[in-house]
Amino acid sequence: MTATDAGAAASTVHANEILISLLLMFAGAKLLAEIFERIKQPTVVGEILAGVLIGPSVLGWVTPNEITHTMSELGVIFLLFSVGLETKPRTILQVGVTATLVAVIGVIVPFIAGWAYMHYSGHSQIESLFLGAAMVATSVGITARVLSGMGLLSLKTSRIILGAAVIDDVLGLLVLSVVSSMAGGAIDYAEVGLTAGLSIGFIVAVAVIGAPAMKHIAPKIIGLRIGHSLFIGAILLCFALATVAATIGIAAIVGAFLAGMALAEAAEQEHATHEQVRGVTEFFTPFFLVNIGMQLNLGAFGSHDTIVASLVVTVLAVVTKFVGCGLASIRLGLRRAAQVGIGMAPRGEVGIVVAQIGLGLGVISDHVFAVVLFMAVATTMIAPPLLVPLFKGERPEPLEGTG
Amino acid sequence: MTATDAGAAASTVHANEILISLLLMFAGAKLLAEIFERIKQPTVVGEILAGVLIGPSVLGWVTPNEITHTMSELGVIFLLFSVGLETKPRTILQVGVTATLVAVIGVIVPFIAGWAYMHYSGHSQIESLFLGAAMVATSVGITARVLSGMGLLSLKTSRIILGAAVIDDVLGLLVLSVVSSMAGGAIDYAEVGLTAGLSIGFIVAVAVIGAPAMKHIAPKIIGLRIGHSLFIGAILLCFALATVAATIGIAAIVGAFLAGMALAEAAEQEHATHEQVRGVTEFFTPFFLVNIGMQLNLGAFGSHDTIVASLVVTVLAVVTKFVGCGLASIRLGLRRAAQVGIGMAPRGEVGIVVAQIGLGLGVISDHVFAVVLFMAVATTMIAPPLLVPLFKGERPEPLEGTG
Repeated sequence: MTATDAGAAASTVHANEILISLLLMFAGAKLLAEIFERIKQPTVVGEILAGVLIGPSVLGWVTPNEITHTMSELGVIFLLFSVGLETKPRTILQVGVTATLVAVIGVIVPFIAGWAYMHYSGHSQIESLFLGAAMVATSVGITARVLSGMGLLSLKTSRIILGAAVIDDVLGLLVLSVVSSMAGGAIDYAEVGLTAGLSIGFIVAVAVIGAPAMKHIAPKIIGLRIGHSLFIGAILLCFALATVAATIGIAAIVGAFLAGMALAEAAEQEHATHEQVRGVTEFFTPFFLVNIGMQLNLGAFGSHDTIVASLVVTVLAVVTKFVGCGLASIRLGLRRAAQVGIGMAPRGEVGIVVAQIGLGLGVISDHVFAVVLFMAVATTMIAPPLLVPLFKGERPEPLEGTG
Repeated sequence: MTATDAGAAASTVHANEILISLLLMFAGAKLLAEIFERIKQPTVVGEILAGVLIGPSVLGWVTPNEITHTMSELGVIFLLFSVGLETKPRTILQVGVTATLVAVIGVIVPFIAGWAYMHYSGHSQIESLFLGAAMVATSVGITARVLSGMGLLSLKTSRIILGAAVIDDVLGLLVLSVVSSMAGGAIDYAEVGLTAGLSIGFIVAVAVIGAPAMKHIAPKIIGLRIGHSLFIGAILLCFALATVAATIGIAAIVGAFLAGMALAEAAEQEHATHEQVRGVTEFFTPFFLVNIGMQLNLGAFGSHDTIVASLVVTVLAVVTKFVGCGLASIRLGLRRAAQVGIGMAPRGEVGIVVAQIGLGLGVISDHVFAVVLFMAVATTMIAPPLLVPLFKGERPEPLEGTG
């Protein structure tokens, strides 16, 4: 082009830059996934590593921006929606007691440990509470992806992990809500109560009423005139419940998972719809994984203190979930308890969001933010290589009694 | 939430706003598509109308932004990729002569008409040339969507339209390149020649070498270790060729269409891959259609002059393509000539891009920009209701001799 059509360049180059970013993310993810398959390591770790490599830490080819963030958000939403589609509500309710116990203990132990470490290493009360809050909620996408890839989503421990992750997301929201209001002075009990009521009400309503209702609604959706109507209806339900969940304050992925679960039985026989959802999921998921890796900014680890704190907090994050969730499920036997404990370890984007909120409120330092980012990415990369041997040789179980 | 966690709100509300925008666009498109199916009108028009309604012109629920633009771009890329997947290269080459004639005459007539109308109504030479250039290239996505929905992509006239649209995109780029360099003073023949060489070389290389090569490469892609490897490979090829096309300066959709065509034979028997690509296409396409409608800003039509000019230019845009492309294919008979003439009428996003470039160069006024926007959206909405009766009763033809 000539120098004169700089306007032309400006207007088309930008769209082109976005295309190149998306191409690099997708190609990088899949190249490393293939390499990790060949060296018999979990592909999710390869895809996250691709993000570390092409992101600001190493090559700097792609800088996280609003587009990559949206693609990533859609990635984890469709990932959990797909997992929900393979999960019938009653199979989660069957393990409800154990899942609740795993969630509750798996929230308390990391919170106290995170707070205590920060408190006794000289940080302010509110900063210590925020670090504790950032260590609370599991990011279940990674574990779900690994288990789905192994064909083991129907396993009892898989169902316990999924159920516990939904519950611990609500508990994490309540902890965040309390800690955030303390940053402003005092706890607003009415507000926290409202948040609790809304989020629990939403989940119970979808799980208990939604799924049976869907069996009556699905045939009507299939009967619509537009093409691929069940797929379209599924996407709409996924988006709608993700939006409601995000509006209440719990993660959008909880809504997406519930949407999938509500449709699980109605869509069971619809092979084409499943493949179409799989296409969307496989398209978007790499952006979620790469984006996690791109969050890491190794440049922030100049100081000795930050490195030490990052390693300590990461070890605490893994050990506390492993011990807390493992103890809560110990009566299933040691191996299963270990499966649950490691399956709940990844914090991923959920921990990062809490830290961003703390940063936004001005109550945590850049140092602590870097520590949380490292912990979030590291726990997410540590879990899959441990999950694979822990679940190796397992076969999907027939449904059993209540958990 | 309490007032104290405004930071929390700010950080989560934004992601939530994006989700709500996407939900509104998708739901609006599909609601109007269903209504249009029931009143026996083309669904694409319903989906574009949904964009007019929820966009700035009427309700103002969603404002076009970088996210909606990217979703729209991915929508038209995957739409053309899917169309390419159903199109074998030799079936296009068979109609090559007719398609070339349709493209050439279909570029010359609208360009001269657009320039002449502007010139004789008192606009500057360069502004008149830009309007002509904005009327040149067909946006084939809409026609392809209609024909694909009717199951008539393999029809001879469908193949002529697809082939002609690829060629007229290259011609459109050359016209734009010449007109843009004239805006700066003189035509840079070397630059225009390079653009021509690159774009023609790219298309010929992919069409002639790519498809046969893909037959050997596809089994290797299927043999990779990663899951859904053919689907992943297809997405990568689509992204890669779209990016190359956009880098050369032709529309990204030309690259996507060629990528689909190159894979058409290799992927023919891969049912799951087809359904997965369909899922991605059906997910993204509504954003493309809604985004066209959202471009329209009815608020810009305050002046009598703008309204008159918009109507005149729209009529000229339809009539010139109808007559030009129709004459070029007249020996196929009147009905087929009319099919080609109307099928080439939509200008969509291609005309808008040219107008944006002119605006960026400072050579067209807001008045002319509004006229082009109206023409682009109107030609796109006029074509489908005419296409449906024109193609009604047609049956997919067996492949014939050369065109």
